[in-house]
Amino acid sequence: MSTLQLNDIYLARQRIAALVRRTPMEHSPSLSRRLGVPVYLKLESEQLTGSFKLRGASHAVAQLSAEQKRRGVVAASTGNHGRALAYAASQQGVQATICLSHLVPANKVQAIRDLGADVRIVGRSQDDAQREAERIAHEQGATLLPPFDHPAIIAGQGTLGLEILEQRPDVAQVLIPLSGGGLFAGVALALKGASTQIVTHGISMQRGAAMHASLAAGRPVDVEELPTLADSLGGGIGLDNRYTFAMTRDTCDHLHLLSEASIANALRHAYHEERLVLEGAAAVGIAALLDGLVEPRGPVVVVVSGRNVDSDQHLRVLTGADA
Amino acid sequence: MSTLQLNDIYLARQRIAALVRRTPMEHSPSLSRRLGVPVYLKLESEQLTGSFKLRGASHAVAQLSAEQKRRGVVAASTGNHGRALAYAASQQGVQATICLSHLVPANKVQAIRDLGADVRIVGRSQDDAQREAERIAHEQGATLLPPFDHPAIIAGQGTLGLEILEQRPDVAQVLIPLSGGGLFAGVALALKGASTQIVTHGISMQRGAAMHASLAAGRPVDVEELPTLADSLGGGIGLDNRYTFAMTRDTCDHLHLLSEASIANALRHAYHEERLVLEGAAAVGIAALLDGLVEPRGPVVVVVSGRNVDSDQHLRVLTGADA
Repeated sequence: MSTLQLNDIYLARQRIAALVRRTPMEHSPSLSRRLGVPVYLKLESEQLTGSFKLRGASHAVAQLSAEQKRRGVVAASTGNHGRALAYAASQQGVQATICLSHLVPANKVQAIRDLGADVRIVGRSQDDAQREAERIAHEQGATLLPPFDHPAIIAGQGTLGLEILEQRPDVAQVLIPLSGGGLFAGVALALKGASTQIVTHGISMQRGAAMHASLAAGRPVDVEELPTLADSLGGGIGLDNRYTFAMTRDTCDHLHLLSEASIANALRHAYHEERLVLEGAAAVGIAALLDGLVEPRGPVVVVVSGRNVDSDQHLRVLTGADA
Repeated sequence: MSTLQLNDIYLARQRIAALVRRTPMEHSPSLSRRLGVPVYLKLESEQLTGSFKLRGASHAVAQLSAEQKRRGVVAASTGNHGRALAYAASQQGVQATICLSHLVPANKVQAIRDLGADVRIVGRSQDDAQREAERIAHEQGATLLPPFDHPAIIAGQGTLGLEILEQRPDVAQVLIPLSGGGLFAGVALALKGASTQIVTHGISMQRGAAMHASLAAGRPVDVEELPTLADSLGGGIGLDNRYTFAMTRDTCDHLHLLSEASIANALRHAYHEERLVLEGAAAVGIAALLDGLVEPRGPVVVVVSGRNVDSDQHLRVLTGADA
């Protein structure tokens, strides 16, 4: 049971206002035409470090004590959280150690190293990387900052929800990528706090959707990790999940699972119609609209969560060599 | 001889502050590594309507009298000016008529129609379109707003220069796409007004660079219009040029001409290294850096002017089918 409230998100915003970018809300003529109602893209792909993760990471570092900052931070990450935390820590003069699994694409690993973090690559899954991070936290006294299941992270991601309310106060439905639930829980807390009438959609890929399986089971469960175009959405939610499972269960109106072909189609749409290069995870909202999964009641806001894609993989999708 | 001064740009900014977006200045790790000094991209590609042209168009409409606004505006355009003017006029409740030549790509024509403008397609060159616009202005009393050679347009584009100074007050060199010279003259006026030490580079394509040929000749001259990846830079500067020729001559420190292969290479770099989909004209600054045409003295700011590219053409460049 979470104790996070809307006010925690306002507090988070005050702490990170100078550290993150207020991202644009763009009208999409092509998606609006297709759906028959106004559709807007919340372009968190234009956030510093290329994904929404910077909001939560900046906030998690900002709220540490001076002594905690001195001892540094450590995290396991499928990539974007590590990149964001490396940047957030360096901006605030804090040392970051990032643990990654061998599944993380090479471009993401290099980007994290470039940001000055100490990178450790271990194991074949998010859980292996997580165990290494816990070991380092225990041995070195560094603060473990998980990618999503942490109140400061959730409140930080929630600041994106405040921007949606300010940029589109008349919003009827919001489509949010759903993985561990940090983004979803934070944004939905902000939205539902403003109006219980705002409909929330949580969107995952079919290949390894841990939150979806957990919600179906009524408790956190593990799923097999599989390669997917939406690799940022991979990884478990933690069998000892404390916050995001309950918050997502309580605030998510509709769940959708997408095929790889749908995600690929959305990546091509984003490129041809919106001139956007996106990672697969960021395109799932567009995919849900293109697949006709969302009732045409607007304005609809689609959270476009990041752009940290391997460009060679992206180009294979554009040319039809993948999916 | 121009009478435009720095203060005109500040006045322009006050008039258009609520109508245009303050665009991001992004550090480019890959270009900084390559040049050995800090390189930043001024992402005007993220401007509303997808190009810098909105600044000048919004200002040109904003400074009309109530009677002029009632009679509407008319323009000839290679695309981005027309798109920007259509949007700017509709935002301010003014009717726009846009004249285009048959060389303008279909996606740009449709985008202008979608913005509510009356579109007329005539002739094979910018000059043909210009004559049609003049005829409509004469017959209907609409105000002719040229794409670049107009004080209000130049002052509007100059607001981009103010943002560069505010975002990078230590800037040493600025790379600016050069076509008719509206963008160049406005931005350079702002930069040189702040410091004569800031070095300006005007960058055009080899295939049909009218300003370059005119500067070489010492007076406005016509050049043959040729198909180019940087099609937004096509078109003449007008044999009766009143402002931009003299202003560019007086404020441009270095001129560069680029091959189609260099522009294609820069488009690929922008996609793979920066996750940006750009039009060819917007990539000429990146191309100049990649070609080693600029002395490594930083910080360097590259004006990335727009993203309104035909995505099929762009994809052919990415896959090597073009250039």
